[in-house]
Amino acid sequence: MTELLTLVPAGVDTYRQPVVYMTEDCHICRAEGFAAQTRVRIDLRERWIVATLNVVATGGWLAADQAALSVSAWSSLGARHGDRGRFTHPEPAASASRIRAKAYGERLTEPDFALIVRDTLDNRLSEIEIAAFLTACTGERLDEVETEALTRAMLDAGDRLDWGDQRVLDKHCVGGLPGNRTTPIVVAIVAAAGELIPKTSSRAITSPAGTADTMEVMAPVDLDAKALRRVVETEAGCVVWGGALNLSPADDHFIRIERPLDLDSTGQLVASVLSKKAAVGSNHVLIDMPVGPTAKVRSRAAADALGLRLAAVGRRIGLDVAMHVSDGASPVGRGIGPALEAADVLAVLRREADAPADLRSRSLDLAGGLLDIASGGDGNGRSRAEALLDSGAAETKFMAICAAQGGFREPGTALERLEIVAQNAGVLDAIDNRLIARIAKLAGAPRQKRAGIRLEARIGDRVEAGQPLYTIHAGSRGELAYARAYAEAHPEALSIRERAP
Amino acid sequence: MTELLTLVPAGVDTYRQPVVYMTEDCHICRAEGFAAQTRVRIDLRERWIVATLNVVATGGWLAADQAALSVSAWSSLGARHGDRGRFTHPEPAASASRIRAKAYGERLTEPDFALIVRDTLDNRLSEIEIAAFLTACTGERLDEVETEALTRAMLDAGDRLDWGDQRVLDKHCVGGLPGNRTTPIVVAIVAAAGELIPKTSSRAITSPAGTADTMEVMAPVDLDAKALRRVVETEAGCVVWGGALNLSPADDHFIRIERPLDLDSTGQLVASVLSKKAAVGSNHVLIDMPVGPTAKVRSRAAADALGLRLAAVGRRIGLDVAMHVSDGASPVGRGIGPALEAADVLAVLRREADAPADLRSRSLDLAGGLLDIASGGDGNGRSRAEALLDSGAAETKFMAICAAQGGFREPGTALERLEIVAQNAGVLDAIDNRLIARIAKLAGAPRQKRAGIRLEARIGDRVEAGQPLYTIHAGSRGELAYARAYAEAHPEALSIRERAP
Repeated sequence: MTELLTLVPAGVDTYRQPVVYMTEDCHICRAEGFAAQTRVRIDLRERWIVATLNVVATGGWLAADQAALSVSAWSSLGARHGDRGRFTHPEPAASASRIRAKAYGERLTEPDFALIVRDTLDNRLSEIEIAAFLTACTGERLDEVETEALTRAMLDAGDRLDWGDQRVLDKHCVGGLPGNRTTPIVVAIVAAAGELIPKTSSRAITSPAGTADTMEVMAPVDLDAKALRRVVETEAGCVVWGGALNLSPADDHFIRIERPLDLDSTGQLVASVLSKKAAVGSNHVLIDMPVGPTAKVRSRAAADALGLRLAAVGRRIGLDVAMHVSDGASPVGRGIGPALEAADVLAVLRREADAPADLRSRSLDLAGGLLDIASGGDGNGRSRAEALLDSGAAETKFMAICAAQGGFREPGTALERLEIVAQNAGVLDAIDNRLIARIAKLAGAPRQKRAGIRLEARIGDRVEAGQPLYTIHAGSRGELAYARAYAEAHPEALSIRERAP
Repeated sequence: MTELLTLVPAGVDTYRQPVVYMTEDCHICRAEGFAAQTRVRIDLRERWIVATLNVVATGGWLAADQAALSVSAWSSLGARHGDRGRFTHPEPAASASRIRAKAYGERLTEPDFALIVRDTLDNRLSEIEIAAFLTACTGERLDEVETEALTRAMLDAGDRLDWGDQRVLDKHCVGGLPGNRTTPIVVAIVAAAGELIPKTSSRAITSPAGTADTMEVMAPVDLDAKALRRVVETEAGCVVWGGALNLSPADDHFIRIERPLDLDSTGQLVASVLSKKAAVGSNHVLIDMPVGPTAKVRSRAAADALGLRLAAVGRRIGLDVAMHVSDGASPVGRGIGPALEAADVLAVLRREADAPADLRSRSLDLAGGLLDIASGGDGNGRSRAEALLDSGAAETKFMAICAAQGGFREPGTALERLEIVAQNAGVLDAIDNRLIARIAKLAGAPRQKRAGIRLEARIGDRVEAGQPLYTIHAGSRGELAYARAYAEAHPEALSIRERAP
């Protein structure tokens, strides 16, 4: 009895979850005892994957001596037409028992994390096993030593860029503040000052836009390591998507599961940030941490605790990590969503009269902080940053970076739009970042680049009944309807304090 | 723009996970912003489901105005050929934020658990969300009040059998001890004594056989509530699969995720056991708790802690719960796996000369304990149980129960068998329950009814090199090979202490 079946593409996109389709009377299913949802190992030449089995009724679209592979299974196996794959039971993932240990509250070591990272990258862990791992690490369930171990395990599983003994700057914003899109501006200023800043960014996890989503509206961001090096050697800086590189690659697998779960873990966050920074070759990192009641970090105490953990683990792996705590009370800029945030970024770089002052000011703070680190702390960083922005040097540098990354493009505008107006007169008192982010996501952000929210009023503004508070920009009519329904059910997203009678 | 598509069966079995297939140029995918792995709500008449989207390449087996449903999606929606379903974004599951709260270490209340249970039953929570919930409850992470709340939430979500004010006995074994198949014997004895014992059992979660798997070898177990009542009204007892009834139905959903994760949670365990017992209408429950270094409960202290939690939560919901702590050092009986365990059960009931003495003795202890509870504690329970077994009354009752459940059948034997022999002479010193269970599962148990392990030696036996220690019974040749490879790599499954030279 052979364990071989002819592989055919199923033409079914299951995103990153590999699926294999076999017929119910397939001889291998019978011999091996495979049933629906069994995890099956498929070997082809030097490669192998573990895929989830879906069983196809006999007499359907699949022949009994064939196995069909989902798009991701086909490509990760490197299959070609006519190939015959070998089907067996996978060995139990060695890391599954380590995940259980963590769920029971045990401390894990670097070899444990290395095993989990390797099995994650090899697709030997199922989605629910990865979900269990992430849940077991939620909140404060990883201590400093474990966080270092996870950081090293994630770092060692991927590539590392090497810039010799040059000074390499980097920044990172701990998310949760919609529209806080300082990165393209900061990179433009710092690179204009001649400092190396090879910035990789992520796509949104739970927010309406990640920096990579926003940057992608203006220039290609899917650069490989060679292309990144070419851009940075020419322009000193770049803003690319980290996922197209092999830097701490397990992070993206974890994010795929974290995204729908919407869970935060201090240890995972620190390991995610620092493993990416170390992998890209940075040695000085400035962390922007907005603090506010509806931001990701909700109190100064939480910011300090997270900052200490980032600095301590950074020190352990040879990274100099500095903190910049900022006000996270309300969104930054006007736009929330990739294209709407890109418009804000360009308005600041272009010194337009109505450019969002808060985004400009935050970007100067961070760029100034990085220039201070570079100069050894002469305290003139912010004024140098301001000069580089106001002179147009930063705009010129940004356009050069976009050109080097593959060409600049102007952000577009969504066709489906709806104004949400004030129900009563008063003073705009507070903006709930989480509700606003939720509305932007229902409108289609970040999947739909032009979707999101544009704030038409700022905190402290006096508004009249019927005056626009914000505009929903949607990717489709259906999404506009969902976002509208949610917005109308949640008028507290923007709270208006009525004037005394 | 319509949200309707014609539904067709995909003929793909994805087990309980509903999957919908739509084409990449489907107008609804475009309008709604659906992509691979998006969760999609489908409404048809009065029913609706949430299914995971898999995207099919254009020009393949699916027309653009059609959506194909997996077997479970088709049946839970009650779809018929020609039906047109309505496709929309599902509302976010209200319980997802409660799951996050638990992951962060917050305490949940009964309304929280009720929400989680309802969303689980409605398939509004994804597998990874349920995995996160179960992981967040691992170990001791649910306290007594939370455990009561979860128990009530699970109980209230299903049906309850009502036996008026009659005394209704029940037993439950906290698993982890392979082959410990006392239930059919205990039910036969207690029912022969005229006491009501409407026993529902589960299929295996992480073990090579559950009681329902074993009983199913001898009689049908998929009875509905009406059939169960008929059997119990005639014969006083039954042994049926709980999953065919609607008693604490969320439990099966949790088990589907727990099974591959192999995670234990005291709170989940207590809620699972007690919600089922209360739902079936029992009022006196005897819990068998085998304790041993490789059993599920590893120490007397752990047994006492679990027993106290079971008794305390039982009291809170009106159940009288008694404990019977037993020796869990090694497997009970000879067989491990559904058919092999059924053979042991029948040997005891039939008073065969080579019937496993340990299984007989344990069954008498438990049946005696239940008869003592019934009599108010006269202490004669065990001798009455013994008389009922030795007289053949229990065997007669068991055959009558099997007949009432749909007809008795004799267990068969696997065709693929292999003896594992001692490598050296000595005394059989210890049996590792976890390794033995793993080998039985690799051989195909419980999916393959005749697969498993038959022990050919008992602890304390003197064995010679080459003497059989156990026989692997496999469902297929492939599975025999896996089980053999694992057995040969783990000779410590049965450890032999060599005799002094």
